[in-house]
Amino acid sequence: MKLASFAFTILALFHTPLATFAQAPSLDAEDIKIAEQLRDEALKSSKGYAIVESLTTEVGPRMAGTPGDAAAVKWGEAKLKELGFDKVWKEPVTFPTWKRGVETAEVISPYPQPLVITALGFSIGTAAEGLTAEIKAYETLEDLKNAPDNDAKGKIVFIKYKMKKARDGSGYGPAVSARGSGAVEAAKKGAVGILIRSIGTDSHRMAHTGMMRYADDVVRIPAAALSAPDADLLENMLKRGKPVEVKMTLGARDGQEYTSYNVIGEITGSEKPEEYVLIGGHLDSWDLGTGALDDGAGVAITTAAAELIARLPQRPKRSIRVIMWANEEQGLVGAKAYAEAHKNDLNNIITGAESDFGAGKIWRIDSRVKADALPVAKKIAEIMEPLGISYGNNRAGGGPDLIPLRQLGVSVFSLRQDGTDYFDYHHTPDDTLDKIDKAALDQNTAAYVVLAYLSAQMDGDFGTDIE
Amino acid sequence: MKLASFAFTILALFHTPLATFAQAPSLDAEDIKIAEQLRDEALKSSKGYAIVESLTTEVGPRMAGTPGDAAAVKWGEAKLKELGFDKVWKEPVTFPTWKRGVETAEVISPYPQPLVITALGFSIGTAAEGLTAEIKAYETLEDLKNAPDNDAKGKIVFIKYKMKKARDGSGYGPAVSARGSGAVEAAKKGAVGILIRSIGTDSHRMAHTGMMRYADDVVRIPAAALSAPDADLLENMLKRGKPVEVKMTLGARDGQEYTSYNVIGEITGSEKPEEYVLIGGHLDSWDLGTGALDDGAGVAITTAAAELIARLPQRPKRSIRVIMWANEEQGLVGAKAYAEAHKNDLNNIITGAESDFGAGKIWRIDSRVKADALPVAKKIAEIMEPLGISYGNNRAGGGPDLIPLRQLGVSVFSLRQDGTDYFDYHHTPDDTLDKIDKAALDQNTAAYVVLAYLSAQMDGDFGTDIE
Repeated sequence: MKLASFAFTILALFHTPLATFAQAPSLDAEDIKIAEQLRDEALKSSKGYAIVESLTTEVGPRMAGTPGDAAAVKWGEAKLKELGFDKVWKEPVTFPTWKRGVETAEVISPYPQPLVITALGFSIGTAAEGLTAEIKAYETLEDLKNAPDNDAKGKIVFIKYKMKKARDGSGYGPAVSARGSGAVEAAKKGAVGILIRSIGTDSHRMAHTGMMRYADDVVRIPAAALSAPDADLLENMLKRGKPVEVKMTLGARDGQEYTSYNVIGEITGSEKPEEYVLIGGHLDSWDLGTGALDDGAGVAITTAAAELIARLPQRPKRSIRVIMWANEEQGLVGAKAYAEAHKNDLNNIITGAESDFGAGKIWRIDSRVKADALPVAKKIAEIMEPLGISYGNNRAGGGPDLIPLRQLGVSVFSLRQDGTDYFDYHHTPDDTLDKIDKAALDQNTAAYVVLAYLSAQMDGDFGTDIE
Repeated sequence: MKLASFAFTILALFHTPLATFAQAPSLDAEDIKIAEQLRDEALKSSKGYAIVESLTTEVGPRMAGTPGDAAAVKWGEAKLKELGFDKVWKEPVTFPTWKRGVETAEVISPYPQPLVITALGFSIGTAAEGLTAEIKAYETLEDLKNAPDNDAKGKIVFIKYKMKKARDGSGYGPAVSARGSGAVEAAKKGAVGILIRSIGTDSHRMAHTGMMRYADDVVRIPAAALSAPDADLLENMLKRGKPVEVKMTLGARDGQEYTSYNVIGEITGSEKPEEYVLIGGHLDSWDLGTGALDDGAGVAITTAAAELIARLPQRPKRSIRVIMWANEEQGLVGAKAYAEAHKNDLNNIITGAESDFGAGKIWRIDSRVKADALPVAKKIAEIMEPLGISYGNNRAGGGPDLIPLRQLGVSVFSLRQDGTDYFDYHHTPDDTLDKIDKAALDQNTAAYVVLAYLSAQMDGDFGTDIE
């Protein structure tokens, strides 16, 4: 810590004349000192853990449009008020809903035994008596796409692709397309159903749910994921060269339109209250787990960070706005609604960042700011150095719920978490509180409080129309 | 390996005159050489893995009395014949059966959310509409026993005790009594149901099943286990001080009497065919997983070991008998039937060992032999030294299915496996093939082939009436 403070002193000395000369955005030395205190305070706060413990215990699963969703909205409002936010309100978000129902599968022949599956989000159901057909396996979605017409005629397609583990979650992209568009591609080849190996990196007998999509001009077929051990089992059966017949039964169906809410808490700024730093996580979860990692942790980290700022003797210059986003899982629905509702005052957002990659330690910070604000972004990174965080690049994504705003030019930051184990639990029943390490959560809070506080205090801005 | 061979040479030189002098049991140097070759062969065989892959893929779950049990018996006979055993037969074992049915639970108030449970073996079911009652928590079974009369009147008892992880599985004993007799003790205090924290060491959202018992003079109440994360959740809810009401629904019920079989394969001895070394694992499993670790691994290890001996140019002096035990899980039923059926020729069993603790590497060998056979037991251990195995003591248990025989004085060995992770998977859906490491399985086979071959070849015996 001492070394880092020393480095800061040098840079601060160096920075001041630059800032003066170019009128570039800059940070005040006193603010940096406070940010460092907030950072160190966060490391011993455990407030984030208390928040996610509360959400998972008192609400639990909160899939969009369920009673859990409504309970989470009530919880969010109450929690923000309890924690001393200056303003707490909610903004409506309306969307179609989906219900899971029963989900079972079994091998009928040649080796009868049950399989563990879970329906993919917005899959149709099967007939009540189930769907029985022979399995037709493909290594990848690409192989399925490249197969001849009618290659899977009357069959249940099985995509075997195994997602790869990586700290940055980079295995997800190549894998998840099988979940998103597998049903459409399988139906194009004449399939009557599809089973994918779960988009996950664990070896536990729990299947990973998540969204799938249909196309208007392609017949809709039921879609589910197999747990990794069940996908292995099916592969081993298929190696024996005999036809493998599987029965799958899904009770999934569409529900009615529903209105939920983005829940918003504000620490109101003392000098430019209309300008704000936007941080948050999404309040909805999938239905299988208690949504501790996805995304109770994100809600908790960002709320705890703002709460630390609220405890200061005076309010920051700009406002800090925590958004608990509605219905991220089924298509960034809350994020899109917010961008639409606020499209005329986006210039008020100084920058934004969502925490939505579990509860692993942050190891890198990326920015997306205008060129002359880069020194400030890098100085913010420097204050995080004692946390084991280094600066990455200026191509930050900002997190899923920041995508609509980022696309409209809003500056964003990405505080990149270690996601090595994230996809072991993602979208499964195993997404529960015990997977969260308190110290790692505090480290996250420490990083967010530095970002939020210094962004609220900086002279100048990060830009308002960033490519 | 070289050092060990050297040590053996010294000991062999030393041993021969001793054996001559005392007419104590002894091993022949040539047999030891063959045992070492068998051991080294086993390490590159992968035969054990092929056997457990076959059992889990082609049969899968095989709870006693289910169609999977019947399929496993057919599989066992066919596999032993295919592998070139000289004789293959089956011996009947008759027992009551139990069916699982639905098993769901949820918190009704104050924080409604689902809980993951599984019925304990031979639990009664609830009414079809479920059983709803307030939770009354106890730290341990002892605390429940020590509670005042009617302390849990009308409540569902919850036992919070967490099993501890250990290489030798020593955490199981103190934990498992809550599963075995929790229902009886809870009913004595007026409870209407019982939920225990799973007897396991993992943190995954899968509950561990296993046997429970009723007492004739105590009312029968439904009994189930919560997964570890669900037990945590319930604890966190209870900390808030409000009454927690849970609904549990079990469709469990007793089935009809059923006859299964101990499946037996013999490599027939060339000199004393009526005498035999008895090795094996149990063929039944619980219904939730595919029984890879419990006890497909044990069946595979011991079958592969015997098959290596069958490949030798000539048969061993004594027979090697592999028993795939029927219905171990619900009370050593196959083991008791075998002891009863063979009570008049137990002297033919030179020694016995069951592999039933997963697929971790063996780290220790214990014996239970008469005093003058100890040098042979220790020499057998020495041949295993290059496998990382050392001699423990002369108080071997022999494995669950050896208990009835051991109690009748039969000599046994325990090849003790590293069970650090065994109770992560034990009796859960997660007991699947991917949890097995091929190299560790080969190491097990190597140890069993040494034990089986040298026991079949030794001069003298281990004793026939061991305390």
